[in-house]
Amino acid sequence: MNEFEVIERYFRRPPRNGDVRIGIGDDGAVVAPAAGMEYVLTVDMLVEGRHFAAGADPRQLGHKTLAVNLSDLAAMGALPRFVLLAGALPVAEPDWLQAFMRGFDALAAQYDVELIGGDTTRGPRTFCVTAIGELPAGTAITRGGANPGDTIFVSGWLGDAALALAVADRRVEVNPMLLPALQRRLDAPEPRVALGVALRGVASSALDVSDGLTGDLRHILDASRVGATIDLAAIPCSDALRALARGPQRPLALACLLAGGDDYELCFTATPAMRERVDALAHALSVPLTPIGVITAEPGLAIRDEHGTPMASLPHAFDHFA
Amino acid sequence: MNEFEVIERYFRRPPRNGDVRIGIGDDGAVVAPAAGMEYVLTVDMLVEGRHFAAGADPRQLGHKTLAVNLSDLAAMGALPRFVLLAGALPVAEPDWLQAFMRGFDALAAQYDVELIGGDTTRGPRTFCVTAIGELPAGTAITRGGANPGDTIFVSGWLGDAALALAVADRRVEVNPMLLPALQRRLDAPEPRVALGVALRGVASSALDVSDGLTGDLRHILDASRVGATIDLAAIPCSDALRALARGPQRPLALACLLAGGDDYELCFTATPAMRERVDALAHALSVPLTPIGVITAEPGLAIRDEHGTPMASLPHAFDHFA
Repeated sequence: MNEFEVIERYFRRPPRNGDVRIGIGDDGAVVAPAAGMEYVLTVDMLVEGRHFAAGADPRQLGHKTLAVNLSDLAAMGALPRFVLLAGALPVAEPDWLQAFMRGFDALAAQYDVELIGGDTTRGPRTFCVTAIGELPAGTAITRGGANPGDTIFVSGWLGDAALALAVADRRVEVNPMLLPALQRRLDAPEPRVALGVALRGVASSALDVSDGLTGDLRHILDASRVGATIDLAAIPCSDALRALARGPQRPLALACLLAGGDDYELCFTATPAMRERVDALAHALSVPLTPIGVITAEPGLAIRDEHGTPMASLPHAFDHFA
Repeated sequence: MNEFEVIERYFRRPPRNGDVRIGIGDDGAVVAPAAGMEYVLTVDMLVEGRHFAAGADPRQLGHKTLAVNLSDLAAMGALPRFVLLAGALPVAEPDWLQAFMRGFDALAAQYDVELIGGDTTRGPRTFCVTAIGELPAGTAITRGGANPGDTIFVSGWLGDAALALAVADRRVEVNPMLLPALQRRLDAPEPRVALGVALRGVASSALDVSDGLTGDLRHILDASRVGATIDLAAIPCSDALRALARGPQRPLALACLLAGGDDYELCFTATPAMRERVDALAHALSVPLTPIGVITAEPGLAIRDEHGTPMASLPHAFDHFA
């Protein structure tokens, strides 16, 4: 099977969206937003041995490869529309690739995302997804809009993906009954697409928690030139993680909660006047939206422990060049 | 230096274009075309050991990484506007990365292309560029518009990049005086941006010759459901390659000419009525635009040798999964 047969068999799709003038199969795809709309573009690269294990399930990997990009679009408040997929594979592996594309396509279909271009080559297994979302002009939610007094929220709960990784690495043990749910958080994250779109006009700033809460929140603080105080006890997490944090594994539990990556929840800020709208959104979307702290005028990030005492040192966020 | 310092130091740029609402540094970039314009999107992945050698000069590599994408945009007739750059590097290498970005930036500045997003991670050295170009709605030049009777043109000359590679692999020797020019064709291809834009409304179909003339031309034939006859003697090439084709190295020379990749010239078709406009373009842009054959109603690609005899077998195009 040559490169073009690979494209024909695994990547060619019937066009889905009216604003795709030319889809996959030419030197480039041609798209145009409707009047008054803007595009949001984001790119992520996933490398075997770094972002996923060599033996990773290809179907879950296909899902996750797209999910992490849709999460970035959600963090901007954009509705996902198109995607370009570039991939290097060590050898042409029809079964593996078919399973990967099943996972990728299932998530794409769920959000009506159209694959409009790509590139395939041989090389160490690597994927690079460029996702394009759409939103009304001027409504993008950036990292730079947080103001002192704004409440800081996170969606869902944090730390389970990192905990699943710690269990896989045998750094900690948990009740085996809890494992499948933890593992799903790591392998099959659900991007908060509906929430991101609904936060337009509600959130003053937002991002997705992909590298860990404290590290990611610092991007909001830097871009907005503000500080923050967070209550450790308020950060939503699973019962498994909460239990660990009360025992001898507390350092690991806090690292998962505060600096664990791969959660793909949204962290956002909103003025206190927006509180009712945030609560209504949580109800309407059946997503917990938990206030965890407040934006301050003084720079810096302070975390108060369960007793209200500022924590002296914080676990480090995941850093690809550390 | 961590990932965010890498981004700040090497990738952050002042905004260049008015249609970039939000540039690098958030979860996504926000862009919108002017009224009546469309975007063209293309992605390419370059892998060390496959698309470039481990010891490749980083500055030239930075140039080429962007050039191959601008070439795809040119083949659609699009003016390049923005680019997203994702890269995996084995270790944080400040000097190497700085040189790479110097080459990348110099070419970007030449075409006023703005870097609006990216991703950096550790991994086997790999780059993935997503380039976004712009054109008036409905003017994209596709692969599917060729009609019987259309003339087939190529820009510049073909085969020198493949010949440079053959010299480097010690498969052939050439006059050392000619080497620097050949090597430049391989290492520092110039995307035919001005030509691509000028071909809107002139060419009936186009693509860039990145994998070899015969293989790439077949994409036009397949997409347009036509055939073609080409005259070997008409295909423009350097004197070095022409001389080789007359001697014992003829098979290698023909492989370079017909199936050599990495030339990044444009191959396009136009009706005979457009001939004067094509000639005028060649003159205005100082780019040779050479007629090499004709589109036929009968499917299939026939190449006539210097004596007008159809060639029995053709060298194969480069295929990343062969």
